[in-house]
Amino acid sequence: MTYTPATQDQLLAIRVNAGIEELAASEKFAAAEPDMVEAIVEGVGQFAAGEFAPLNRVGDLEGAKLENGVVRLPDGFAEAYAHYVEQGWNAIASPEEFGGQGLPFTLACNVLENLGTANMAFNLLPMLSVGAIEALEHHGSEELQQKYLPDLVSGKWSGTMNLTEPQAGSDVGALRTTAKPIEDGEHAGKYLIKGQKIYITWGEHELAENIIHLVLARLPDAPEGSRGISLFTVPKYHVKPDGSLGPRNDVRCVSLEHKLGINASPTCVMSYGDNDECIGELVGAENRGLAAMFTMMNNARINVGNQGVQIGERATQQAMDYAKERVQSARAGSPDKNPVSIIEHPDVRRMLLRMKALTEGSRALLYYTAGQVDRGVLGDENAKARGEVLTPLIKAWGTDIGIEVASLGVQVHGGMGFVEETGAAQHWRDSRIAPIYEGTNGIQAADLVTRKLGLHDGEAIGSLIADIERECGGEAHLLTLARDCADVVAWMRNEASLDDRLAGSVAFCTMLAVATAGWQLLRQLRAVESGDAPALVKSKPASVRFFLDRIVPEASGLKASAMAGGEALYAIPTEALLG
Amino acid sequence: MTYTPATQDQLLAIRVNAGIEELAASEKFAAAEPDMVEAIVEGVGQFAAGEFAPLNRVGDLEGAKLENGVVRLPDGFAEAYAHYVEQGWNAIASPEEFGGQGLPFTLACNVLENLGTANMAFNLLPMLSVGAIEALEHHGSEELQQKYLPDLVSGKWSGTMNLTEPQAGSDVGALRTTAKPIEDGEHAGKYLIKGQKIYITWGEHELAENIIHLVLARLPDAPEGSRGISLFTVPKYHVKPDGSLGPRNDVRCVSLEHKLGINASPTCVMSYGDNDECIGELVGAENRGLAAMFTMMNNARINVGNQGVQIGERATQQAMDYAKERVQSARAGSPDKNPVSIIEHPDVRRMLLRMKALTEGSRALLYYTAGQVDRGVLGDENAKARGEVLTPLIKAWGTDIGIEVASLGVQVHGGMGFVEETGAAQHWRDSRIAPIYEGTNGIQAADLVTRKLGLHDGEAIGSLIADIERECGGEAHLLTLARDCADVVAWMRNEASLDDRLAGSVAFCTMLAVATAGWQLLRQLRAVESGDAPALVKSKPASVRFFLDRIVPEASGLKASAMAGGEALYAIPTEALLG
Repeated sequence: MTYTPATQDQLLAIRVNAGIEELAASEKFAAAEPDMVEAIVEGVGQFAAGEFAPLNRVGDLEGAKLENGVVRLPDGFAEAYAHYVEQGWNAIASPEEFGGQGLPFTLACNVLENLGTANMAFNLLPMLSVGAIEALEHHGSEELQQKYLPDLVSGKWSGTMNLTEPQAGSDVGALRTTAKPIEDGEHAGKYLIKGQKIYITWGEHELAENIIHLVLARLPDAPEGSRGISLFTVPKYHVKPDGSLGPRNDVRCVSLEHKLGINASPTCVMSYGDNDECIGELVGAENRGLAAMFTMMNNARINVGNQGVQIGERATQQAMDYAKERVQSARAGSPDKNPVSIIEHPDVRRMLLRMKALTEGSRALLYYTAGQVDRGVLGDENAKARGEVLTPLIKAWGTDIGIEVASLGVQVHGGMGFVEETGAAQHWRDSRIAPIYEGTNGIQAADLVTRKLGLHDGEAIGSLIADIERECGGEAHLLTLARDCADVVAWMRNEASLDDRLAGSVAFCTMLAVATAGWQLLRQLRAVESGDAPALVKSKPASVRFFLDRIVPEASGLKASAMAGGEALYAIPTEALLG
Repeated sequence: MTYTPATQDQLLAIRVNAGIEELAASEKFAAAEPDMVEAIVEGVGQFAAGEFAPLNRVGDLEGAKLENGVVRLPDGFAEAYAHYVEQGWNAIASPEEFGGQGLPFTLACNVLENLGTANMAFNLLPMLSVGAIEALEHHGSEELQQKYLPDLVSGKWSGTMNLTEPQAGSDVGALRTTAKPIEDGEHAGKYLIKGQKIYITWGEHELAENIIHLVLARLPDAPEGSRGISLFTVPKYHVKPDGSLGPRNDVRCVSLEHKLGINASPTCVMSYGDNDECIGELVGAENRGLAAMFTMMNNARINVGNQGVQIGERATQQAMDYAKERVQSARAGSPDKNPVSIIEHPDVRRMLLRMKALTEGSRALLYYTAGQVDRGVLGDENAKARGEVLTPLIKAWGTDIGIEVASLGVQVHGGMGFVEETGAAQHWRDSRIAPIYEGTNGIQAADLVTRKLGLHDGEAIGSLIADIERECGGEAHLLTLARDCADVVAWMRNEASLDDRLAGSVAFCTMLAVATAGWQLLRQLRAVESGDAPALVKSKPASVRFFLDRIVPEASGLKASAMAGGEALYAIPTEALLG
């Protein structure tokens, strides 16, 4: 199957929803001028389609394998990653002083979108490195930054995030990995790390020359819970003062998970300090590790939402191709009874348009969010707050629609969709992780109805809904949904208990995400109608209308759920629920 | 993991929704008295949990394998199937003259529900045999019936359905397999069958002593399309006049599909007549094969809808168990900060209650449908028509909720849900086939808005909606949804074009299914409130309220989609849709 980068729709979203021209008007992002933006979007699209996409199927079939402590990837992965580093794609949004290009997050999103559409599992390698870079950029000492950032920014080295332990998943505060200060000797001032971490994405591999693990652990006598957690760097290979690699550190991959999807991404159980010789260095202040981790986690959540857009795009393209090629039955009611491509049948066309509308809607929301984050970096506090409101929306709804679109892709293929050779099933399997990791979608929704609901005394969320209401023009369904969202907010802020809000959180999160995506699609439509994207002049109106006329009213159907309250959930005793 | 048959909820649905006592008042079903019903429901539940359930995981891991033309199943399958036959479960609803028990279809549904909840892939073996039995029962000559039915009814032999060919999927009329009359010799009066069939469930295996394939093929000079198709029996082993097995027929399994799920169910590519010696016998009249196939396809569709209930029940039980065992985080806002089982967290509880409500709602709809089918058999024409309206609802919505519930099950498990060892992922993978086979859910919805919409001049569907409106009591959301359904029906019958109806078909199918399930759950609730099922007195109100207060209003959100019309789907030229 072929894969064509969605370059034109990405450029439209970057212009209209992220507002790249406004960003480029700032000194910081002055390099993001139109020619540069086009060069990046087109260039990374071609690279991803040419080098990452052909490895998607083999990555699923063969997967990552652990052999004598070494993780092996299928042939081609090492070469493709080397080319990725050579071409400088890893460095897009990183600081210029460490070799990065200092471009907006918006464009880093685009790099990830293209790589992940081509190969979701492979893209997790750069995606996790970005997290390590951000953590060090914001919290590392200058010494740590000088030591690690240049090679992390170039991609020569990769990074990982180590939070989860068997007993500490959503509740990170329950982690038990320890860090003991080293008082004397070669490593004085550093720490001995000891513990086991699970679900470590790309925790071990040979594609990069070194791996810098960012590890959450507890210092001796640290406070209990999340206030007693510190962040450490633990390199796979020690780094000598001259920057060359020293001996191996005491960290190893114990096993790989056998997963439902993203098989080419090694999900590692990592063991630190089996021989009590695992050396780490503190990042930021003692006991402030979780805050440091959350700095980068906001963007990481947007990057996971991005994965929904990615799998949606890939699944949609594959389903379109199949629906065009597969001939079956005449159109219902056709006089000639000639069989047609199934793309001509109303319900298949409905499925394809739904896939397209959901994918484009989530893309519009993604770049709108990214643009707000970039404005926040430029010092716009309102945009920063809006970016914080939007983050759980794109993470949760983006990943939910990723599954829905991939499932529709299977359905369009009929029986062939259930046969693994076709590839449609892989997208669906791959898509399933995204609502789980980087904070489950339930946790995103909880964040929305607690912290984000009260942000700026309610103004952050209130102004978003007011903007949608004001700019929805004559779109009755969108106006209704915006008002429904406002009703839910008013109830949640004024009348609802904490349980009530949590009980309605996921429904409300979907409502607000759909309203925002619909609004941003409407802005795209207006831009296309005024000549902004001639290549999309025929397709954009169809997908936007589908979104506004069908998907938006469905979201209003969630209002009752959002406001149903928490009591009903506890009216049934736990034992009766179990049995 | 353990699995407990949902005996009490099944009995409630069989009493309240199927109305078993009314059925037992007839001469034909007089044997279905309360003691017998309980014995069957409890007995098959225990059998399924004891013998089929333990093979579910190994069936997924090892799957069916083709070795030198022979299909091998993991250890234990042959023994479990032998016990199934010995205990007589295969014969529940088959005619007594061929060794069956002649009980209502309702109870056959219950046998399948229990077996399939225990092991969805394994259950396809009995499920397909039922189809072969029904086809022969209604269309086979007495000679064919005497030859095949006793051993099919007992389960000593199994049956298959052979419709699909690579170019003939949803469009069965495009099939090319041929049948040539044999004029002379030993097989005079029979037919030489030649062709290849795909997606043949349990097409080859050694669990039964013989396999009777029901094969659609074309006679020489048959009319084109679906009017030129005839139905044939093709035994794996020829059957001698004395009933003993003769030599092997010229039919073989060429390969097995590598599928997303139901790995223990061999999905075969079957080749008939490689050596021009494949002997078949005509079932029913020449060129009337499709009609004969459709006789049994109605019940087969209900049986596939049943699979949604099955996977929902299994996934719900597994998620409940996990949510009870897994301790993580304190309740939000709790003063003591003590970690609790995740079943105590509002959003996890919401997911579990949603799983439970959807599963019980689909079960209520399943048995309501089965009861109407049984009344149709007894000669009640209105019930027969209602059963025909309900069939696409349970097939499409039942299988859709199967996926949704299994997906929620994965989500409740968090990261563990994405790891295959847990088993939650298997349910989700298994569930994905059901919306595809036995007529895709799009085809079910098309059937609903074409044939079923006009059945009895609209009275069949109109009376269903009227019943819901009349009996919904004070349930405002349910009344609204019933009226929404009535609006859609009025528009579809009076104003909409064929394309308009097809464009809204899936949305409307969901709306009507949810309305009917909500109504049937309400009937269950009233029965429980009047003391009908003491074991469910605490749990039933919670799941019914969840369904009526949250799931029903969501379905009203589909009204705009149902009535959005077909024009928008074709406003975009196919080339622009492709990209």
